[in-house]
Amino acid sequence: MAMRFFSDNAAPVHPAVFAALAEADALDTAYDGDRWSKRLDGRLSELFETSVRALWVPTGTAANCLALAALCPPYAGVICHRDAHIQNDEGGAPEFYTHGAKLMLAEGEGAKLTPADIAAVADAIPNDVHRVQPHAVSITNATEYGLVYRPDEVVAIGDLCRARGWRLHMDGARFANAVAAAGCTPAEVTWRAGVDVLSFGFVKNGGMDAEALVFFDTGLADATLRRRKRAGLLLSKGRYLAAQILAMVEDDVWLANGRAANAGAALLADAAGARLVHPVAANEVFLRVSADEAAGLRAQGFDFYDWGPGEARLVVSWNQREADIRPLADAIGALGSPS
Amino acid sequence: MAMRFFSDNAAPVHPAVFAALAEADALDTAYDGDRWSKRLDGRLSELFETSVRALWVPTGTAANCLALAALCPPYAGVICHRDAHIQNDEGGAPEFYTHGAKLMLAEGEGAKLTPADIAAVADAIPNDVHRVQPHAVSITNATEYGLVYRPDEVVAIGDLCRARGWRLHMDGARFANAVAAAGCTPAEVTWRAGVDVLSFGFVKNGGMDAEALVFFDTGLADATLRRRKRAGLLLSKGRYLAAQILAMVEDDVWLANGRAANAGAALLADAAGARLVHPVAANEVFLRVSADEAAGLRAQGFDFYDWGPGEARLVVSWNQREADIRPLADAIGALGSPS
Amino acid sequence: MAMRFFSDNAAPVHPAVFAALAEADALDTAYDGDRWSKRLDGRLSELFETSVRALWVPTGTAANCLALAALCPPYAGVICHRDAHIQNDEGGAPEFYTHGAKLMLAEGEGAKLTPADIAAVADAIPNDVHRVQPHAVSITNATEYGLVYRPDEVVAIGDLCRARGWRLHMDGARFANAVAAAGCTPAEVTWRAGVDVLSFGFVKNGGMDAEALVFFDTGLADATLRRRKRAGLLLSKGRYLAAQILAMVEDDVWLANGRAANAGAALLADAAGARLVHPVAANEVFLRVSADEAAGLRAQGFDFYDWGPGEARLVVSWNQREADIRPLADAIGALGSPS
Amino acid sequence: MAMRFFSDNAAPVHPAVFAALAEADALDTAYDGDRWSKRLDGRLSELFETSVRALWVPTGTAANCLALAALCPPYAGVICHRDAHIQNDEGGAPEFYTHGAKLMLAEGEGAKLTPADIAAVADAIPNDVHRVQPHAVSITNATEYGLVYRPDEVVAIGDLCRARGWRLHMDGARFANAVAAAGCTPAEVTWRAGVDVLSFGFVKNGGMDAEALVFFDTGLADATLRRRKRAGLLLSKGRYLAAQILAMVEDDVWLANGRAANAGAALLADAAGARLVHPVAANEVFLRVSADEAAGLRAQGFDFYDWGPGEARLVVSWNQREADIRPLADAIGALGSPS
Repeated sequence: MAMRFFSDNAAPVHPAVFAALAEADALDTAYDGDRWSKRLDGRLSELFETSVRALWVPTGTAANCLALAALCPPYAGVICHRDAHIQNDEGGAPEFYTHGAKLMLAEGEGAKLTPADIAAVADAIPNDVHRVQPHAVSITNATEYGLVYRPDEVVAIGDLCRARGWRLHMDGARFANAVAAAGCTPAEVTWRAGVDVLSFGFVKNGGMDAEALVFFDTGLADATLRRRKRAGLLLSKGRYLAAQILAMVEDDVWLANGRAANAGAALLADAAGARLVHPVAANEVFLRVSADEAAGLRAQGFDFYDWGPGEARLVVSWNQREADIRPLADAIGALGSPS
Repeated sequence: MAMRFFSDNAAPVHPAVFAALAEADALDTAYDGDRWSKRLDGRLSELFETSVRALWVPTGTAANCLALAALCPPYAGVICHRDAHIQNDEGGAPEFYTHGAKLMLAEGEGAKLTPADIAAVADAIPNDVHRVQPHAVSITNATEYGLVYRPDEVVAIGDLCRARGWRLHMDGARFANAVAAAGCTPAEVTWRAGVDVLSFGFVKNGGMDAEALVFFDTGLADATLRRRKRAGLLLSKGRYLAAQILAMVEDDVWLANGRAANAGAALLADAAGARLVHPVAANEVFLRVSADEAAGLRAQGFDFYDWGPGEARLVVSWNQREADIRPLADAIGALGSPS
Repeated sequence: MAMRFFSDNAAPVHPAVFAALAEADALDTAYDGDRWSKRLDGRLSELFETSVRALWVPTGTAANCLALAALCPPYAGVICHRDAHIQNDEGGAPEFYTHGAKLMLAEGEGAKLTPADIAAVADAIPNDVHRVQPHAVSITNATEYGLVYRPDEVVAIGDLCRARGWRLHMDGARFANAVAAAGCTPAEVTWRAGVDVLSFGFVKNGGMDAEALVFFDTGLADATLRRRKRAGLLLSKGRYLAAQILAMVEDDVWLANGRAANAGAALLADAAGARLVHPVAANEVFLRVSADEAAGLRAQGFDFYDWGPGEARLVVSWNQREADIRPLADAIGALGSPS
Repeated sequence: MAMRFFSDNAAPVHPAVFAALAEADALDTAYDGDRWSKRLDGRLSELFETSVRALWVPTGTAANCLALAALCPPYAGVICHRDAHIQNDEGGAPEFYTHGAKLMLAEGEGAKLTPADIAAVADAIPNDVHRVQPHAVSITNATEYGLVYRPDEVVAIGDLCRARGWRLHMDGARFANAVAAAGCTPAEVTWRAGVDVLSFGFVKNGGMDAEALVFFDTGLADATLRRRKRAGLLLSKGRYLAAQILAMVEDDVWLANGRAANAGAALLADAAGARLVHPVAANEVFLRVSADEAAGLRAQGFDFYDWGPGEARLVVSWNQREADIRPLADAIGALGSPS
């Protein structure tokens, strides 16, 4: 079972999270009136070195789409990468939460955007009433292909947004992996770089069912509390979600888990060499493999995702250690050079 | 702490549920592709003695509103009681999920509806294009005031719905308490009576964050799977939700918990006598108390909800036993007759 | 044909409007880029004695609902009378345009609201995230029962709105009749009294298919231009709508038409005496009549609307003169006292 | 003024339409209860040689988006060309009317789609709950670049739709030009080819503000009547819209106008020769011109639209005759070969 590289969503829950659930299993006020939920703002303000408002939600899709609804009116648009999770993997949730705002698709290597990529989309749109106008940008860090933004790269996008009057969202489903890879502080790559709202993912990184939606523009939080309720996302026993987030932040479990998964992916990347489709910075490895090669790896017990013809995606989870990963690295090495 | 009668949402999680979470803490497929999620249809089909489709969702609001969206187009309406949870306590979620369908408010003693109450709403609406037309009815069982529908009462409503071409939803946030009180089978009070979709609540009854949305009209389930994803409700590690539901259904934990809470409420009801605002059938007790009397009870350490001036709501949770409840019953008895 | 009192929507178009259509039948820029559309802001600013932004739309429903969307977010509510047109006669358009905001229904004699009526609705709503909160108030002037607000009555409502942080909309489908009846200026009963947006109706008053949406809070207009397009309401040849409005405003045709219709209704009211359900100020007369009496009037060739059992609604149109109305007044007089 | 080739929306109204407006200027029932509106189904059923349901609406955007809402649920998608009017020129109206359905963009020469173009979009979408799935196809005839579908080309698309379980919409803002160019019957290129709903445009072709939404799948019409009202599109005096459509259909004014405009465009196309960007079949001509050449044409009094750098769009209107067009043809001819 340790040979599964299909998705970090499939991984189990970190022991500290389970312990926190047990600890939260006491009588307390319902919804987000409990003592755990009330600690979120303070604890995440510490982590981000600024005053933030933080809300728990049960999924990354919910976090992303509440963020988009806070940043973009129904008649406007959000620029994102053509391969962004919000465009391809959320079943139309951005359109649902924003009441029909339009995703505007930018190109960019490895699902990573530059200011030029973003401006190219916007500059092709005449500013008249017939065309939907962009009001926000959403970037994913780490990207859908495992690339990571350096703080200065986010700063450049943040500057563009400010200059154009747009808002900036970061989808951080793998924020831990991104921060671990960039070697920066959480602050440097978010609000200091112009990010207004962050979807801070924990589920892929050891949580059970709690993600944090972090508002650096704290004025947006109150309306979002209402949108969260209105979306059926205000869990009756929210303390179990808040407790998970607190446990992940405590002792930097989130960062340690992110580092561990990244290290595992680096092992695979070393073995893959010329087979890599993208440079590997976080915990995802995209590999060129023939159908026969993929079948061969599977025959050895390795599980992974076919990423279109001739490519495979390998994801390392927080709980996989070198001994779990080495056999796959060896098997990849044994494939030799790609044909 | 056992003196809290504020809300059954505040209660802890049943041990069987916690055990199920630990058991589910293994590597498995993400979303609802895991072995627990795949067992839901079968297990709930057994419980309901018919073939059903069952989806986990993290809140009762989500369950209710996915149901309404499945039953009512955006341009139509849903008849419900003026005091229904969907009208007063879901922050506009029904309007969000249905894309603006209208709730049409019926009167009825104790938030319970009769066919006549429902028909009165509909019959006042001219059938032209200027008026929104009803397409569905939603009843709550047990009601917001703790009343319970007998199977024949639901049959009568189901017959009306069929005659008018409407669909029927049951909000069963306290379905366990309702079934326990009615002494009927789950089937008798749902699909056999004409209910198309049931929100089957577990969280108030010992669950952590899993409710079941049960489609008796199974043709509605596939689109709802898409709506669930689109609403950001498809949790990455859905196995933890499915496992909770299975644990609650196993050995009829749900029913035992419902019975226990009802029994506790009966103790309070006996003590309350003439102070009861509504007859007590499930686990909620509405009490006439003056402000001074309420303050006096609170001074003795009892916690509860003020339900408008001169009324208090007491809710008994699954885990409260006679020893936990008797002190409050005695304190109520000591109040004497209402002024 | 002059014996029709069914609806002012059924009346023909004023000759000045037809002339304006013919005049606009020249080549010009599409949408609202033409010279007629460009004159609207200026012309209506003159009429209202302040700087306004004015948009043409083809229906009163569109005007009302664009206004509500500008004033109320999707997760909030609009307080209006239980019998308001937006609640009963627009097929759910308010919910569509606002993306599901909730109409909150107030009571009030003759569909007219006082600050106390409005506050009663709001004060019954706990200010928590579970309940939808009011963000705006909508009043109809003249009301659905033909009552008219004096400027000081609107001032009182405007003050309440300002104190609570709400916005104020006036549905002026019969604004001409209201202003004619109140003997005030358009300014006194709108922005000077705290109205943010007015739906200024022309179609019931001699127009063909143009209403004006007038923003006194001009900052709301730009987003509404986008919402108008997004709703499919930006007519390709908008000049024909703008020209109608300009023709109605020119030489105060709108006001003369309103006065004429009101005068006709006064004739009927005098004849009706004790049969009046509401005092008559504008162009609508609600009459107590038995089914036999109604049948008798119809047998004489008079056409009107049954307003529930025992009541009839008579509407006088801009083009009906005393000679057209006198026969109905006489017939009503001949009915004698109501039984 | 006859030298304007900017847009057919700028053209005046056909005399027969004006005459019809005057004729409709009689007292009649409001909304669509009048004798003109009631004739639409019958008259258009004759024209299309099958039983249809036909609704007037004031804009092409409204027609298109009501059609899409009838064909596609909120959680699904509509395949259309990347340059389709619904994608680029309707300000997000498709997303508004469908409650957030996704437009899925196909490639195709001259904004014209083949079954292969459409299938390519669909086949790239995994059929799981994370991805929005296509439910409908929308094609424009004549296309945004003036190309025209032959009946057999629509049949091929209709067959694909049927095979995949999708519905088919035709945006016929320039349907008259398309039918005139294809030399087919209206039936051959619509329902006989598998089209479910047609937006039948009249405004660009001599109407004032009436388009017809024609349902070949008549079962979709009733719900659309409600959606039309809900969108604020049910004009109070609908008889003026119905009368326009009837006037345009009478004596085949629509077809004569379409032919006239096409003939004018053919004159320009002959003159343009190698400068044509697309073959010219309908009433639009896309021309390669340098900035200097464009300036030169404008200096001679010709007005047209810059279609990106190096291209100009010339549109011939129904009322432009050879004498109006010849000067521009000559001026284009005088430009010589493109550089």
